[in-house]
Amino acid sequence: MSNCIVAQSGGPSSVINATVAGIVMANQLNPLYEHVYGGLNGIEGILQERFVDLTRLTDHELQVLCQTPASALGSCRYKLRRDNVEDMEEIFNIMEKYDIETMFYTGGNDSMDTVAALSEYAASHNIENRRFVGCPKTIDNDLMITDHAPGFASSAKFIATTALQCWQDLSVYPPSRREVFILETMGRDAGWLAASACLSGIVDVLIVPEVSFDEDKVMDRIRECIEENAKCFVVISEGAHYADGTYIAAGEARNDLFGHAVLGGAGKALEQMILDNDVCPRCKVQDLSTAQRCHASEASLVDVTESYRLGMSAHMRSADPKFTGMMVGVRRRTDVDDYDVEYFAVEADKVANYVRNFPTEWLEKNYRGITLEAVDYMKPLIQGTPDLIIKDGMPEQTVPFYMRGAEIEKK
Amino acid sequence: MSNCIVAQSGGPSSVINATVAGIVMANQLNPLYEHVYGGLNGIEGILQERFVDLTRLTDHELQVLCQTPASALGSCRYKLRRDNVEDMEEIFNIMEKYDIETMFYTGGNDSMDTVAALSEYAASHNIENRRFVGCPKTIDNDLMITDHAPGFASSAKFIATTALQCWQDLSVYPPSRREVFILETMGRDAGWLAASACLSGIVDVLIVPEVSFDEDKVMDRIRECIEENAKCFVVISEGAHYADGTYIAAGEARNDLFGHAVLGGAGKALEQMILDNDVCPRCKVQDLSTAQRCHASEASLVDVTESYRLGMSAHMRSADPKFTGMMVGVRRRTDVDDYDVEYFAVEADKVANYVRNFPTEWLEKNYRGITLEAVDYMKPLIQGTPDLIIKDGMPEQTVPFYMRGAEIEKK
Repeated sequence: MSNCIVAQSGGPSSVINATVAGIVMANQLNPLYEHVYGGLNGIEGILQERFVDLTRLTDHELQVLCQTPASALGSCRYKLRRDNVEDMEEIFNIMEKYDIETMFYTGGNDSMDTVAALSEYAASHNIENRRFVGCPKTIDNDLMITDHAPGFASSAKFIATTALQCWQDLSVYPPSRREVFILETMGRDAGWLAASACLSGIVDVLIVPEVSFDEDKVMDRIRECIEENAKCFVVISEGAHYADGTYIAAGEARNDLFGHAVLGGAGKALEQMILDNDVCPRCKVQDLSTAQRCHASEASLVDVTESYRLGMSAHMRSADPKFTGMMVGVRRRTDVDDYDVEYFAVEADKVANYVRNFPTEWLEKNYRGITLEAVDYMKPLIQGTPDLIIKDGMPEQTVPFYMRGAEIEKK
Repeated sequence: MSNCIVAQSGGPSSVINATVAGIVMANQLNPLYEHVYGGLNGIEGILQERFVDLTRLTDHELQVLCQTPASALGSCRYKLRRDNVEDMEEIFNIMEKYDIETMFYTGGNDSMDTVAALSEYAASHNIENRRFVGCPKTIDNDLMITDHAPGFASSAKFIATTALQCWQDLSVYPPSRREVFILETMGRDAGWLAASACLSGIVDVLIVPEVSFDEDKVMDRIRECIEENAKCFVVISEGAHYADGTYIAAGEARNDLFGHAVLGGAGKALEQMILDNDVCPRCKVQDLSTAQRCHASEASLVDVTESYRLGMSAHMRSADPKFTGMMVGVRRRTDVDDYDVEYFAVEADKVANYVRNFPTEWLEKNYRGITLEAVDYMKPLIQGTPDLIIKDGMPEQTVPFYMRGAEIEKK
């Protein structure tokens, strides 16, 4: 019997470990593979043959894994290039050496491109017994075809809950105190995360990358709020930009290893404009930063459940020896009134390297937030909170696998 | 039958509304007062006779109040000065007009000073039927005499949970990627909040106001962590300062209405030092900012319960016509092994205007965190999470009272 491997890539999320747990559990229910290996640090660790054995994790260990944020197997930013023949060959050599038939790879656009590239390589070299399956994951929710991506809903829930509670904080002082609160979220190209703050019902001004930032109009809108209510709650994506494409946080932009701009500081830039334009004498900025993608202790139960089931679905579908180059996804059911999804598979190259923006028709005019249709789309995703396994008052956590010295012996 | 009033002051917390709920519930159980009024925006609103009637809030309304952060009655930064005879007289006039015998005032040092000032004024003017009772509240945990202050534990829990989860996020990339994560907490003069992050067990470096910031030593300590583990998790109080008293965030300091420095930016200042000193090429800063004091959705159940009971205790003790100028507090029981507290009363002037620092003997040398004794003190406080009343996937919230147009008619 051959083996499979699962590895994680890209930025962390609150629920991506649940996909790994789902794969392990599915293999315990129906052992298609002798071993479920975990590859440490994505493709990077696979190339270094850094593997752990996940096959017989206990139910308790799997439950704890599901409530542990980030990537317990470690992640990487290493991009496998189609033209890097050496890397490509090496991966197939390693898979042969460890008798690995199927590689499950979790991640966003770049990871789906890795899945597509490897399966194309196998096809063009007539390699039939090495298969590659993608599991979607990105808090940015910018993946095509799948209704939404695991990780988004938990971040959305944390952002909306934090917005609501920060609004309570903003509201305590008398109307004589005029104040703008600026909540900055992640979202370089897509406004899904910033838009999710509107689920709180208290957002006055929403600034997303899908609509150019017009300083005069934004200042007018904030001024209007201050005149009406003395307070104004603004939510801004890190990727907010002017019509010419310049980020409003441009002063701080630098590039990451994939050539994407690393942003942050849009909130501070907006604060400076508000003060410079005399719109309001007092501003507070909360940049949700890392916390918004790892707050698993208040994850969405829908999100954790779907992420787990996507892992199971990927494993179960891989019983078909032709199943390769595919990503599993979720589709919203239209035949029932309640929110429910069905799981399906799609070619990974249809997903890779595209960005799904927040629909502009779901945005109210003049930075006033989102439409009811957008609320109806997002609200079912943030329902429920998992029961946590608590240890000494803290959520019990999976120690990252690379810290355990439990790597299997290299062959 | 006379009436009582409750008002809130100072910075918001996650559990201060529970004290108000406790007072209202105690009066429903034993109606010492005909009406429980809520004064809007603390002393400021009392001077403007802006009152609401809380007497008959329903059980559901009280439960929602307990899970609503900040101050549902509104807060103020108005400081009642002993030498402002006009204000002092006006308060007694208003209390007479509305037949208010007892004023419950929640807050920190400044609020306890208000309680002391008003009761001294009554005593020196032989006014017997106007009484003033303080209920402690401050996330900073810097109040004397009470074992701890409501609000601290919930902030501590959020900080520790966020630290743990951000550490998971920091840990996903391979050891080849060296990185420092800096978590900035509130705490201008006292390091309780920063220290609470150590409950997560993952903090490498802790910088609090109680120990002067020695740049060379801190850089050495961080360098040591990076050399050992490639990663370093630092927690810093906003009030971190050099031996001469200069805040390390001094560039951004300005004063609030009480003359206290408003800080923020210690994390960013530290990041700059790390980069300038070539200690590590990569830093990330998470400033917990407002979220740390209003994250009621993950409050500590111990904290909410004690805050509620402190309100009940204050109300019940006020049956004694001599009970004035007092603050209620909690004392840790020493006659049982399990964590438990007893409630007691102390003169408000013994609490007012003092600051209780984090004990330096609870700090490990060389910025290495806290001792086991400190852990033993804090750990019982963060236990349990309240069951939330959820509405559409969000915690149901009390709409701030001043927004309801429900003020009682002025007399």
